[in-house]
Amino acid sequence: MTLLDYTRVEAAARTLEGIAVRTPAITSRALDATVGFPVLCKAENLQHTGSFKFRGAYSHTANLSEAVRARGIIGASSGNHAQALALTAQILNIPATVVIPDDAPRAKAQGARALGARIIRYQRTHQDRDAIVTKLAERDGLAIVPSANSADVMAGAGTAALELLTDHPNITTLLVPVGGGGLAAGTAVIAKHLNPHIQVIGVEPWSATDTLQSLRTGTRVTLPTAPRTIADGLGHITPAELPFAVNNRLLDDIVTVTDHDITEAMGYAFRHLKVVAEPSGACALAALLAGQITHTDGTIGVVISGGGVDLTGFLTTIAPYKEKARV
Amino acid sequence: MTLLDYTRVEAAARTLEGIAVRTPAITSRALDATVGFPVLCKAENLQHTGSFKFRGAYSHTANLSEAVRARGIIGASSGNHAQALALTAQILNIPATVVIPDDAPRAKAQGARALGARIIRYQRTHQDRDAIVTKLAERDGLAIVPSANSADVMAGAGTAALELLTDHPNITTLLVPVGGGGLAAGTAVIAKHLNPHIQVIGVEPWSATDTLQSLRTGTRVTLPTAPRTIADGLGHITPAELPFAVNNRLLDDIVTVTDHDITEAMGYAFRHLKVVAEPSGACALAALLAGQITHTDGTIGVVISGGGVDLTGFLTTIAPYKEKARV
Repeated sequence: MTLLDYTRVEAAARTLEGIAVRTPAITSRALDATVGFPVLCKAENLQHTGSFKFRGAYSHTANLSEAVRARGIIGASSGNHAQALALTAQILNIPATVVIPDDAPRAKAQGARALGARIIRYQRTHQDRDAIVTKLAERDGLAIVPSANSADVMAGAGTAALELLTDHPNITTLLVPVGGGGLAAGTAVIAKHLNPHIQVIGVEPWSATDTLQSLRTGTRVTLPTAPRTIADGLGHITPAELPFAVNNRLLDDIVTVTDHDITEAMGYAFRHLKVVAEPSGACALAALLAGQITHTDGTIGVVISGGGVDLTGFLTTIAPYKEKARV
Repeated sequence: MTLLDYTRVEAAARTLEGIAVRTPAITSRALDATVGFPVLCKAENLQHTGSFKFRGAYSHTANLSEAVRARGIIGASSGNHAQALALTAQILNIPATVVIPDDAPRAKAQGARALGARIIRYQRTHQDRDAIVTKLAERDGLAIVPSANSADVMAGAGTAALELLTDHPNITTLLVPVGGGGLAAGTAVIAKHLNPHIQVIGVEPWSATDTLQSLRTGTRVTLPTAPRTIADGLGHITPAELPFAVNNRLLDDIVTVTDHDITEAMGYAFRHLKVVAEPSGACALAALLAGQITHTDGTIGVVISGGGVDLTGFLTTIAPYKEKARV
């Protein structure tokens, strides 16, 4: 049995039809001029709850039996997956519990709470979130919805690329941020099916290269310490198991970006694309703007994966760099 | 002869095909919940040069004879029309001159310069911009491209509504910002053709109600002093002649917003829609969020007309309000 193949992504697309936003592919003459080739940005920051995560959370939950999901769903998240779970539960009229680290961005925790989810806080440095999730799930009979480590979550995430490549089959290189690896895996599976010659390239913060190192060794590496990066959604110490199995087979490369590259990209998105990208969501664009991609021909696709940053967070992140803002 | 009818808007749409961005209509579950009915935001801030103005400038210029436009185009603008002219000229490979007030937002003037336009600065309080434009046009044989007072400019502006209403015929009320009135006029003409029962409502800053007062008296009113508003694109003292003739016939109503309403809407767009709206561009959304629209049924359409605000300008505008930001 294949863990994840393109038919599962296509099935997820049918599940999400009329539920998820068919997000626009944004073009910018300024961006094309800056990087020297045509670029399409898949704006998943305009997805419900502000990130691609809704696609996976909903796809996974909708595939649970009605009896299982009726008791409720639970998941752990630094934020975007939390909001995705909360909205999924609201739409399906079931309860959601989300386990959120105490240092998660305010906007994300509040977003999940506003959508009616029960919020459980934990201390990232002292507590084991998976243990908390497992215990609560067992106690309350809840279904765990992983943020990446699920075929349905990966398939849901891959629907963004399915939309992008269906509308724009001329894309020859596709850049996606890599955290747990679910987005990269779902993207690679559908992209390679639609175009066997496409290059699918992951982007990690330079301090959180767990997937890069794992791909080089061919086995899942665990970083010795928790990465420090402003890309709070990508600070994983080890790739999720199922996504890594896919990425190890299909991902063409991983490139890295610095926090400075990321803030530059956030500012660029604000000024030239007129959209709000959170640090994690701006990583693929950051790699492009930082010159990490040596491109030959065709159009390049970039997934702007999320916009979950509040105004204060945005200002704090961007402020040190705003003086040198190019307009 | 009819000054402007729907066929002219349809012709402009053909002219702009493959040239202008077919901007997305953004939806937000949060926005729907906040206002109590479904809303579609036509994101003209994602248009080339960051505003709807490109549609009109290009439509007008493309309809000039080749001999006329070859010598170059000129126009006056607080900013967005300037960039629209600059890009139009770049695409058509002709020279552009733009006359910009000395207090125009930095991003807009720099944007026009970056696109290769010649920039002429003038002092808004002491100099007559129209006299400057006329003199330069005569001296250098340039074609004047008005920012609103042209059937082709209005028709071009109306193509945004044509796209929106073609894709979403269920819209029963459409909100547009009103400055010179060209966007409102083009919108009203095509909207009333597509749906005679649609309500087209203009939005003005409360301190710049030249069109509102003119509609009430049935004749063009000139305000005694230049309006003070953060919506720098809407601070007109009198409606442009041709748009007013249309708006006087077709616009259903005008509502007003305060600077506070506008900053609230800019913040809301950032947090919930994940897009950047400049003050003028956020006015229609501001009217909606401020409860100015008593809606009965169907979907409401809102034109977010521009995103021409730099980071510093955004921070300065939003800062006094950010503490009370609802997430």
